[in-house]
Amino acid sequence: MAKNPALATNMGVDYVIVFRYAITDKAQAEQRLEEMLERLSGAGLATEVRKGNDHSVLVFIKVGSDEHMNAEIYRSRAKDWIHGVRSAEPAKDTESALEEDPLTEAERLRVIHGLITHPRDEGGAGITPHKGKWENVEHVFALHDHNYNKEWIKKWSTQYLLTPEDLDEIRNRMGEKIAFYFAFTQSYFTFLAFPAGVGAFAWAFLGYFSIWYAIIASLWCVVFVEWWNHQERDLSVRWGVKGVSAMDQKRREFQPEHSTQDPITGETMQIFPAKNRVMRQALSIPFIIIAVIALGTIITSCFAIEVFISEVYSGPLKSLLVFLPTVILTTALPALSGMLTTVAQKLTDFENYETEAQYERSMTAKTFVLNFITSYLPLCLTSFVYVPFGSILVPYLDVFSVTCKPFAENEKQLQCPKYSSEFEINPARLRKQVIYFTVTAQIVNLAMEVVVPYFKRQGLMKYKEMKQDRAAKNGAPVPSAAADDPEGETDFLARVRNEAELEHYDVQGDLKEMVVQFGYLAMFSVVWPLAPLSFLINNWIELRADAVKICIEMRRPVPWRADSIGPWLNALSFIAWLGSITMSALVYLFSNDGLGPDGTPSEIKGWALLLSIFFSEHLYLLTRWLVATAISKIDSPGRQKERRAMTLTRRKVMKESMERTRMAPPPGEKVDEVTRSSLEEDARQGSLRNASPVERFWDRQRGWKEAAKIGRLFIERDVYDEKSSQEKKEL
Amino acid sequence: MAKNPALATNMGVDYVIVFRYAITDKAQAEQRLEEMLERLSGAGLATEVRKGNDHSVLVFIKVGSDEHMNAEIYRSRAKDWIHGVRSAEPAKDTESALEEDPLTEAERLRVIHGLITHPRDEGGAGITPHKGKWENVEHVFALHDHNYNKEWIKKWSTQYLLTPEDLDEIRNRMGEKIAFYFAFTQSYFTFLAFPAGVGAFAWAFLGYFSIWYAIIASLWCVVFVEWWNHQERDLSVRWGVKGVSAMDQKRREFQPEHSTQDPITGETMQIFPAKNRVMRQALSIPFIIIAVIALGTIITSCFAIEVFISEVYSGPLKSLLVFLPTVILTTALPALSGMLTTVAQKLTDFENYETEAQYERSMTAKTFVLNFITSYLPLCLTSFVYVPFGSILVPYLDVFSVTCKPFAENEKQLQCPKYSSEFEINPARLRKQVIYFTVTAQIVNLAMEVVVPYFKRQGLMKYKEMKQDRAAKNGAPVPSAAADDPEGETDFLARVRNEAELEHYDVQGDLKEMVVQFGYLAMFSVVWPLAPLSFLINNWIELRADAVKICIEMRRPVPWRADSIGPWLNALSFIAWLGSITMSALVYLFSNDGLGPDGTPSEIKGWALLLSIFFSEHLYLLTRWLVATAISKIDSPGRQKERRAMTLTRRKVMKESMERTRMAPPPGEKVDEVTRSSLEEDARQGSLRNASPVERFWDRQRGWKEAAKIGRLFIERDVYDEKSSQEKKEL
Repeated sequence: MAKNPALATNMGVDYVIVFRYAITDKAQAEQRLEEMLERLSGAGLATEVRKGNDHSVLVFIKVGSDEHMNAEIYRSRAKDWIHGVRSAEPAKDTESALEEDPLTEAERLRVIHGLITHPRDEGGAGITPHKGKWENVEHVFALHDHNYNKEWIKKWSTQYLLTPEDLDEIRNRMGEKIAFYFAFTQSYFTFLAFPAGVGAFAWAFLGYFSIWYAIIASLWCVVFVEWWNHQERDLSVRWGVKGVSAMDQKRREFQPEHSTQDPITGETMQIFPAKNRVMRQALSIPFIIIAVIALGTIITSCFAIEVFISEVYSGPLKSLLVFLPTVILTTALPALSGMLTTVAQKLTDFENYETEAQYERSMTAKTFVLNFITSYLPLCLTSFVYVPFGSILVPYLDVFSVTCKPFAENEKQLQCPKYSSEFEINPARLRKQVIYFTVTAQIVNLAMEVVVPYFKRQGLMKYKEMKQDRAAKNGAPVPSAAADDPEGETDFLARVRNEAELEHYDVQGDLKEMVVQFGYLAMFSVVWPLAPLSFLINNWIELRADAVKICIEMRRPVPWRADSIGPWLNALSFIAWLGSITMSALVYLFSNDGLGPDGTPSEIKGWALLLSIFFSEHLYLLTRWLVATAISKIDSPGRQKERRAMTLTRRKVMKESMERTRMAPPPGEKVDEVTRSSLEEDARQGSLRNASPVERFWDRQRGWKEAAKIGRLFIERDVYDEKSSQEKKEL
Repeated sequence: MAKNPALATNMGVDYVIVFRYAITDKAQAEQRLEEMLERLSGAGLATEVRKGNDHSVLVFIKVGSDEHMNAEIYRSRAKDWIHGVRSAEPAKDTESALEEDPLTEAERLRVIHGLITHPRDEGGAGITPHKGKWENVEHVFALHDHNYNKEWIKKWSTQYLLTPEDLDEIRNRMGEKIAFYFAFTQSYFTFLAFPAGVGAFAWAFLGYFSIWYAIIASLWCVVFVEWWNHQERDLSVRWGVKGVSAMDQKRREFQPEHSTQDPITGETMQIFPAKNRVMRQALSIPFIIIAVIALGTIITSCFAIEVFISEVYSGPLKSLLVFLPTVILTTALPALSGMLTTVAQKLTDFENYETEAQYERSMTAKTFVLNFITSYLPLCLTSFVYVPFGSILVPYLDVFSVTCKPFAENEKQLQCPKYSSEFEINPARLRKQVIYFTVTAQIVNLAMEVVVPYFKRQGLMKYKEMKQDRAAKNGAPVPSAAADDPEGETDFLARVRNEAELEHYDVQGDLKEMVVQFGYLAMFSVVWPLAPLSFLINNWIELRADAVKICIEMRRPVPWRADSIGPWLNALSFIAWLGSITMSALVYLFSNDGLGPDGTPSEIKGWALLLSIFFSEHLYLLTRWLVATAISKIDSPGRQKERRAMTLTRRKVMKESMERTRMAPPPGEKVDEVTRSSLEEDARQGSLRNASPVERFWDRQRGWKEAAKIGRLFIERDVYDEKSSQEKKEL
């Protein structure tokens, strides 16, 4: 089936460890390698070593002992049960439990990953890549299943919509974390059909800045975000991972300030006071301020230069100078962003989180802020600075004319004395910008993600071959890693060496892309209502391209679990909220398609702008509340599943309890028989005199029959107007 | 100890049922009484009947069979366990379980209440007061423990602060629902000390409408609400009721549209489609609109009349007419409110909820809206209509002068031609109103709650005695209920008959009062900063008065459970949010203590007002997020308790699993021994040729020792510049 037979088999390998010995001295590397192999064997894993590229050893791992594997499965499931992710304690006899609740490939790989990385006292081998004495361990990765990958890509590229079963399949193979990304993108893609249609209609018939489009788009944002919130929870039940995010996966890098013993459990607790962490987190505030200023300055000055050159300046070299801002933006901005991201990472490290989830959340928040600035600031500048205040501010761009003077042949070209009165705002600028961000940038992005890395990798391979050839010519041949390969394994090992050099896949980046895209839709699509249509097309391709990317460009990801898309949901909610503000402001500012004769929008009134924002924002909040309430009422397969599990357990428990009670003799009857004898009756009356008041109180009537008799007497003897009472009742 | 010996003993009675036979005909009543007694006996309860007041039978109940009681305890605890409220399955042998986890009085009473009211197939007697064939069952109530009550009130009235142990005691006696009310009021009371101090300081030194007071008060509101949110969760863990609110206590009144069988569990499901319910809930919207209009009209017209009479009119009878609005408000408003509450109840019934919790939530929401209008509309009118627009609107009050004409002696008294120019806004009006709501109304309320009912009840008793005396004189003596009392029980029965006539205690009303009070603080206290001080004093008394009220004025409440103060938390949050709007608006409108010369506040600018509201509101939202995040980081006894339970379970499970694995022989060693023999080595090499590629792949190195040997060889043989690699690493 596969062209290349090496792709058809994984040789039963579960994981491959890349052990790069060249970064430490030989003796140390050898000793560490030996220790690693011993530990892996102790954790029940079989190993084989082969040569790797660039002074590394490849350690192939497969499960050698079922006892260890089963024990690890049991421990993983028991942990889930303790944290409430599973409703019942897993059977201690794992083999039989597996028949009921089979192991998916994702769970299997996750469990084996646990055997490699978990501490030894928890039954693992305690290998932690890159960290401490395991710095030589470069990667721990599973091999791609090329047969499956091929089918996967083939299937997806021939069907229009992904079914829930397709997503289940991803979950079974890649784990819930990646499956959640695909599920989210698929949901988002399906939902996009509606605003795409409405947008196309608005574009054709209502023009730009239509209030109707703005209202429908905002409403759609609310519904989508709330629906996904619901869907996410439902999927987490469907996939049995609800509550997984609350399970602390401890970070190895966490450095406690001190450790104490819990007085009750006796457990040693690693403590880093929350107060200290809050103080360290506070550093994010100056960081964000600096980031805003730095990125803002670059973006604003590029913007100002561009406006000056394209709309004011008419001197020489204009056709070349026009590209100046683009050059600055495409070189300085990514460099600065990269630098800031590094700082953000350092800050997040410094915040010293105890669990991976907290770390990821904090890092995501910072990434979101940085992306927010670079993605939306240019549009905000055009909408809320250039358009309303352009005719006031642009004349100050005068400062640039000093710089341009050397190029100008005569004063006239700079038009200094004139432009302050003649300058006109270019109403198409905002639209052009939006089109750039929603179409051009999306295509460029896709290319950067899939096409460029492919050529890069091909180039790198060619370069290596050439280097080796040259070295051979120079008489100092670098020994190829493949030289010692056992016969029949050459192709397979070549393939593994290739996979070892692929990139690490981080789902957060792909999620970020979708969230940023959603932001353009929620905040600015009223400028150009075709944006959702462009996104719809883009995302159909994006979904498939990401699948291809994971299969071809990336090492096979460890199938981590997740019960949501994490903090990105908050980001979506926040963006939709902001959208209610920007959309209404844009509609007001450009109302009536309306730029006045002097290029500024006609008659902007502060109070009217603020009132429309105030109104729109509160309408948004009210709608969100209503929609959230309505959606929470919808019954879903996930909830039904939960309810059923509960009903079955409950019924069993109740039935058992009822049966136990029924075995006891009914106490009423016992006593009744006694009362039948009038002899005993007399004895009782006698004994009553000697009893305590309480005993006497409870002995007046024996059993319910006697109580009923006395009760009847009370009712019969009582004199009252039955009719009037009944009438009262009816009133 | 007790003056009255009848108060010292409850005769071992757990519950008393008031069976009012006079509302149905005698035969039916007798038959029902008999069935009830039989069922109670079947559920393991012992009964005694005595005569009650006004044609009723008192049925005394105590636990007769430990088997039934223990089974019910087990079922109650098992249900908790299934719903995740308890972490472990309760022991089936309840008697031994009770030693570990003793029964509090509240749990005991709740469980017995369950024996009386739960359906028969779940082990109860199935008696549902007022409903269906049990319409004769008027109340099911426990007797007050007068010894405890006396101590309780004595203790509370002599200590300044309630300790957590005092609250635990309330929880053990009265159940968590009531305990949560006291815990909330206590927290609120403690927190009030801070704004009371700041308010007094602001009042003395900063004057009214101080922006500093407004900021501090808003900040305090945020912190208090978020803190309580945290505290509430912590208490629910401390009291072991976390998640109780999610347990469906089915409503008997629920009417399913149809019922189906669940295909998997086979259970009959009563279905009322969510769509239908949403449509019925939509009726709340016109209801609220009508309520706003109706209440608004009364309040607004009274307000207008008052302004007209006190500030415009100067004709005859002014001193009398001044009271007209008060008379209208105190007669029409409560009547209308009562009517609207009845309608709200009918609407909520119509919404046909499946569970008590949903019903209560919906009803609370409606009550909150009604109370919101009556409590805050008058102040809103003064602040946001009378002050900014007074000089424009008041002249239109002219219409009243037509009504007043008959009383006026001459045209001059109506001042019609003059007041439009001379009218001056009364700046003290708002302050007076706030003082009325925060001081006078609170005192009146307290009196209405505690003092008035006491005298009412005394009066009623006197009236009944007089009626009986008169009837006796007329020769038709109404037989007293006490006539047939067995000797020695007269006092006790008289007391029980009294308690049966007390009111039902509903904790929602008391909570509502506190929330409304919080609203005055959050929204209007900047008008008169002494308000928090007044609340501080009021609430010290309120806490004790409520204790007295429960002990003396009310039947002993059934100790229901709850894990929060329910929807009131949302109400608090909503009010604090609104507060950020009203406070900033008030500060801006009255800035500079500033009424202009014409009586209107000087220079109100629409955009400035809106901008300050916008700014303040978003600052509020940001602060709330920050405070919520910070508070969620605080460790608390409740969380520690949860964590410990988890650690202990986990450690036990892990230890067992590790021991099971250790019993299996380590697989590495086994294989190693084989490799030692070189004879076998040869055999292996031979067999490799016939094996599959996969087998050959995994058989190249037997055991980790051989793999390590090969690995060492790779490293030793490799030629590379060790130093440069290490330098690279250090970079």
